[in-house]
Amino acid sequence: MKKFINRPEDVVEEMMQGLAVLHPSLARLLGHKVMVRADAERARDQQVAVIAGGGSGHEPAHAGYIGVGMLSAAVVGEVFTSPSSDSILAAIKAVSGEPGALLVVKNYTGDRLNFGLAAEMARAEGISVEMVIVDDDVALKGTGQATGARGLAGTIFIHKLVGAAAAEGRSLAEVAAMGRAAVESLATMGVSFSAGTSPAVGKPSFELGEHEMELGLGIHGEPGVKRTRLQTADELTETLLAEVLKHGRFGDEKRVAVMVNNLSATTEMELAIVARHAMSFLESKGITVERIYAGTFLSSLDMAGISITVLGVNDEWLRWFDAVTTAPAWPNAL
Amino acid sequence: MKKFINRPEDVVEEMMQGLAVLHPSLARLLGHKVMVRADAERARDQQVAVIAGGGSGHEPAHAGYIGVGMLSAAVVGEVFTSPSSDSILAAIKAVSGEPGALLVVKNYTGDRLNFGLAAEMARAEGISVEMVIVDDDVALKGTGQATGARGLAGTIFIHKLVGAAAAEGRSLAEVAAMGRAAVESLATMGVSFSAGTSPAVGKPSFELGEHEMELGLGIHGEPGVKRTRLQTADELTETLLAEVLKHGRFGDEKRVAVMVNNLSATTEMELAIVARHAMSFLESKGITVERIYAGTFLSSLDMAGISITVLGVNDEWLRWFDAVTTAPAWPNAL
Repeated sequence: MKKFINRPEDVVEEMMQGLAVLHPSLARLLGHKVMVRADAERARDQQVAVIAGGGSGHEPAHAGYIGVGMLSAAVVGEVFTSPSSDSILAAIKAVSGEPGALLVVKNYTGDRLNFGLAAEMARAEGISVEMVIVDDDVALKGTGQATGARGLAGTIFIHKLVGAAAAEGRSLAEVAAMGRAAVESLATMGVSFSAGTSPAVGKPSFELGEHEMELGLGIHGEPGVKRTRLQTADELTETLLAEVLKHGRFGDEKRVAVMVNNLSATTEMELAIVARHAMSFLESKGITVERIYAGTFLSSLDMAGISITVLGVNDEWLRWFDAVTTAPAWPNAL
Repeated sequence: MKKFINRPEDVVEEMMQGLAVLHPSLARLLGHKVMVRADAERARDQQVAVIAGGGSGHEPAHAGYIGVGMLSAAVVGEVFTSPSSDSILAAIKAVSGEPGALLVVKNYTGDRLNFGLAAEMARAEGISVEMVIVDDDVALKGTGQATGARGLAGTIFIHKLVGAAAAEGRSLAEVAAMGRAAVESLATMGVSFSAGTSPAVGKPSFELGEHEMELGLGIHGEPGVKRTRLQTADELTETLLAEVLKHGRFGDEKRVAVMVNNLSATTEMELAIVARHAMSFLESKGITVERIYAGTFLSSLDMAGISITVLGVNDEWLRWFDAVTTAPAWPNAL
């Protein structure tokens, strides 16, 4: 394993120290692996707090999305490990005021459990808390998987929408309802060319042959639904979008926002090539691509791979996409 | 080779099509591999045009830096291949008005030649053109290499400074002089864990053992100055910064801006860990880190590696760092 790290057991702590150095707009919550808006004290009574989090290894998710117009706080677990409910509760208490808090949680058992417990504890202390569960993965749809679909990169679209709505002064009930409605029209499908390597494990979580790829995989080294031969960028874009379109519900007007997400080690040249064909393929299906983004939104260690997310949108949601945010990891798009 | 591409010979053309899809603020110059600000027609008489370019494979450099407050145009060569002087001239003519044009060129023989020739041709047509050559690599300092130091990621700091100065209405002579002064206090040193793979070649440009790294390498698969055993992130950060400090001249006040640049396949977790120690190491040397950035600023295909750049700064330059830009690849930092 070749990584720019010191001791594997220190990576998350040292990363958080680094994020604090890189982004003066973020502050560390003492005693917890929690980062908050540096101006949280001022903001907490002015808007619904939006809190996300989960295991590390998905950078820039989630701390990179902290800022005006996106997240109020991010709770940071160890690599691929759900954060503790204690830390989640500490985050809620640090950034929530009278308007309450919305937790945006990817659909994994540990995250649901720990965020859910923290929400209960916060409510017991008189804080209004709602939770939105993101389950945008379409790879396992129809397989009868008991825990439901996983939360993938589409989660970042939800951060942007609920973050902008909260910054605009919407109530907790409104922001939560909008977030849930957005999850309903969100669909993501991923593909990997090579697995990521966790610092603590030191070797890739699975091996793929030189001409193989794996479709529909998770972001924690879980195997995908299908291992197949390499395809060209255009073929692969259509393969991913075909699954997304098959399972997604994007509304009668067929207006969408699209994300080409880099799972980590894919180049920007490749992302642009995929984005180009995603646009023309979707338009050939009578779908209007209102916004399209490419970049590293939610990664999986150093995996080579991408996911494509499609979200049905309306005029209000587009306004929230375009709303200014200071979050360092949201693309500069003035 | 596993890449999200179609035919290797089409990657640059298709990438440019993708960039046009992703960034409505960029426009394609017909008949050339040139991208320009979509509002170039309006801007050309209002400010000095800033033009950069070079071979592809360094994304988001350079087209990602097109926008208000940074580049007016980027000339895009094939992978690791200097663009033609015809295309450079077309770019100059497309975006330059009365205030003239500044070319920011990385110090490679092909780029110097082709940009220099285009500058001559443009002057012959009555356009005022100046050129700033960026040679920030310190790896080859003192080796007596005839062509001088290479241009590396520090080039993007120069884009930001001259772009902001030009947007502020400074004259061509002023912007060029400031750009040259900035290059004088700019120093970069890189390290690689694995070589990149060019789409046309299909295999990595060199091989490194499981416990080896290469210091002071170029961004076109050139070998480095030293192959050595892996170091921890903190040791390696000091190794790179020691070379940077040895050769760089950052001014008496020792105020600097720092960039931790991802050469492509390094994770944001690792960048943050390096940034954290870069900050504390520089401060232990009595240097004031006024700004620090981490991200993929100038890559080398899919190489796993980083470079660290240090630039001596003053108050005016810091203002230009912080000036708003619409360039999609400059970090969102409102």
